[in-house]
Amino acid sequence: MRRRLSVVLAGAAAIALSAPAYAQVPAGCAPNALNIPGAPFPCIYTDGRVTFRVSAPDAQKVRVRMGQGFEMTKGGDGLWSVTTTSLVEGFHYYTLAIDGSTVADPATRTFFGSGFYNSAIEVPARDADFYAAKAVPHGQVRQLSYFSKVTGQWRRAFVYTPPDYDTRTSAKYPVLYLLHGWGEDETGWTLQGHVELITDNLIAAGRAKPMLIVMDNLNAVRPGESAALYAARGTLTQAVVQSAQPAGAPARAGGPGRGGAAGAGRGGPLASEVFTEMMLADLVPMVERTYRVAAGRENRAMAGLSMGGAQTFGTALANLDKFAYIGGFSGSSGGGAAFDPKTTSGGVYADAAAFNKKVKLLFLGIGGAEGPNTRNFSDQLTKAGITNIYYESPGTAHEWLTWRRCFYEFAPRLFQSR
Amino acid sequence: MRRRLSVVLAGAAAIALSAPAYAQVPAGCAPNALNIPGAPFPCIYTDGRVTFRVSAPDAQKVRVRMGQGFEMTKGGDGLWSVTTTSLVEGFHYYTLAIDGSTVADPATRTFFGSGFYNSAIEVPARDADFYAAKAVPHGQVRQLSYFSKVTGQWRRAFVYTPPDYDTRTSAKYPVLYLLHGWGEDETGWTLQGHVELITDNLIAAGRAKPMLIVMDNLNAVRPGESAALYAARGTLTQAVVQSAQPAGAPARAGGPGRGGAAGAGRGGPLASEVFTEMMLADLVPMVERTYRVAAGRENRAMAGLSMGGAQTFGTALANLDKFAYIGGFSGSSGGGAAFDPKTTSGGVYADAAAFNKKVKLLFLGIGGAEGPNTRNFSDQLTKAGITNIYYESPGTAHEWLTWRRCFYEFAPRLFQSR
Repeated sequence: MRRRLSVVLAGAAAIALSAPAYAQVPAGCAPNALNIPGAPFPCIYTDGRVTFRVSAPDAQKVRVRMGQGFEMTKGGDGLWSVTTTSLVEGFHYYTLAIDGSTVADPATRTFFGSGFYNSAIEVPARDADFYAAKAVPHGQVRQLSYFSKVTGQWRRAFVYTPPDYDTRTSAKYPVLYLLHGWGEDETGWTLQGHVELITDNLIAAGRAKPMLIVMDNLNAVRPGESAALYAARGTLTQAVVQSAQPAGAPARAGGPGRGGAAGAGRGGPLASEVFTEMMLADLVPMVERTYRVAAGRENRAMAGLSMGGAQTFGTALANLDKFAYIGGFSGSSGGGAAFDPKTTSGGVYADAAAFNKKVKLLFLGIGGAEGPNTRNFSDQLTKAGITNIYYESPGTAHEWLTWRRCFYEFAPRLFQSR
Repeated sequence: MRRRLSVVLAGAAAIALSAPAYAQVPAGCAPNALNIPGAPFPCIYTDGRVTFRVSAPDAQKVRVRMGQGFEMTKGGDGLWSVTTTSLVEGFHYYTLAIDGSTVADPATRTFFGSGFYNSAIEVPARDADFYAAKAVPHGQVRQLSYFSKVTGQWRRAFVYTPPDYDTRTSAKYPVLYLLHGWGEDETGWTLQGHVELITDNLIAAGRAKPMLIVMDNLNAVRPGESAALYAARGTLTQAVVQSAQPAGAPARAGGPGRGGAAGAGRGGPLASEVFTEMMLADLVPMVERTYRVAAGRENRAMAGLSMGGAQTFGTALANLDKFAYIGGFSGSSGGGAAFDPKTTSGGVYADAAAFNKKVKLLFLGIGGAEGPNTRNFSDQLTKAGITNIYYESPGTAHEWLTWRRCFYEFAPRLFQSR
């Protein structure tokens, strides 16, 4: 077998040769799965400690921004490094502060969160198998462009189609509309969430119905409305970026981040009416024109995480003629202490029997480290006679491992009444 | 019409309120189209000058790395800024050097180039209309996972399907295999190249045949081969990142970058045999299993940019029983001064009449600022009796506007012999 490296690029070769030798990862420290190809750092120990290493030869101070943060020190080789305390398993956004400037670490892939492109580490989870790529039939994630009359702009949506979509050409499929969180976008559920792999695996195991999953951007403003309004809703201006705390900082590593204290939708007004209008007037009709979609509310579900969970409750509870399955992941704690079935969410919970007949699934998920609000909400619903499922991801905070697990518990319960 | 902002997130609001007021863009300076939502800088003047602005309160030195680079100065507001000389129109990668650390600017989206995630600006092109989203039927870009036996790994590919693919359910389609350049990946042609919009527009105008476009990653190593080999081929280790010159730096702004001097494949060995084997053994069969593909070499094309152009020539010229249409964009200057039809590329050009009968299109594209090598190669081919198309993008360097234009000239010439 010939293994000749048959491309020689003069430029690349020169760069590679002139680069300083880079420290190897310490024994027992495996490169982060989200690193760019070939980058040895950050690396992760089996106990969840992470070693970061950064080149910043002329900097005075370099920090890893994650939770309370970790000060780096400059070594004899001129590189800055730090080894953290043990981090909880899961996906964690982070950034670097280099002499006060907040930037992504060039050693990792970047992920849109908190309104800009963060670095991230993936501390391996004990149950990572459920979102692993396996030798099972794979669906596709399709990118669509469509014009929204409500916003006056072109939008991008992603649609997961199950493995058999192109071969069962007369079959019609139920649809889940699935939303990201604050400061994220329509790429989150695939890039951070691996939703396509989770669904492939569930379908292959016979545990979930083949379904379409539509992932759009929960930000929507009307034509002429200011970007500031857009920014306030779901993204950040550059100025904010520089002082923002990335979401998903692990609770164990320090500060609460936006963890349990954030989960959108406790108390105040919940959801954007512009998004709801856009979704019902533009997105749903586009999806139903483009795909073979099974008709009726019992073939339509909606779910979301954090702010997307709040949006889900706002949109779906106000349109129960259109949705029969509803999920909120870390974003659906309802009225909290102020919960009153007669008034919360426009009184939709007032007639429990009618609600239970109409809503085939009301799913509330949360990370175990996020606090008691969602559990309390579930208890209040139960006390008011509202059937609901409460799921708690063991030990995780306001981050993507929580939401992957929530989805894994949620998806098998969809479209089971057909 | 109600315009109430009905989501209030305590965390987001607090951050927004505590952030320092950010300088507005100067008159006549429009925010870069590739900025994150809400970011005013970088902004671009109509004459191509760009103003960058960065928060780095404790830094001693901040530079924009693009071509020769631009030193930033710290203003009274504590923010660093610089206005460049006029940059040539098109897409330009850039990074920041903050006290010697090379990082992406958090104000823009990030794009995989030179083996990591760069920032980028888009200096508006006079002919930008051809890659704009318009009210025409839109195709889809589909993400697929497949397992390669040759590499022993799961791979990701993107496939553009034309607007009528899901409605003309008995039609079969020709396929173009389209490769990115050195240090880029399978996302390049959609995120940087807008290939799906260009194709939508060409099909709507009746100028291109509806086709499938398969975009994969040109990096492929055998099981057990080291990541260093992979890195040397197409990506960079973190150490290299810190000293690498991003591709696509505009020639007018200074140094040559990897521009005309780089274009993979002049002289030395051209293409990876592992990629060719993977493509023919794994990728093509997967595509032909998954989609309704028209049979035969006259329904199969291959093209690529820079190193992907060199790979295209290496793969396709050695397999003319499988490909009838071939394109190289900034990456196909063949043997240069050493060109000899009897020996170059294994003597494939030796019998011009046979070659011309077999190869329905041999397309050579280049940016006008990239130097004469590709034109010379085209002239040598012509002199040797080989029919070929030479296209030069006016004034552009080794960057994506060149390749968008190349594609726009190339695609209408595909699959016309059927």
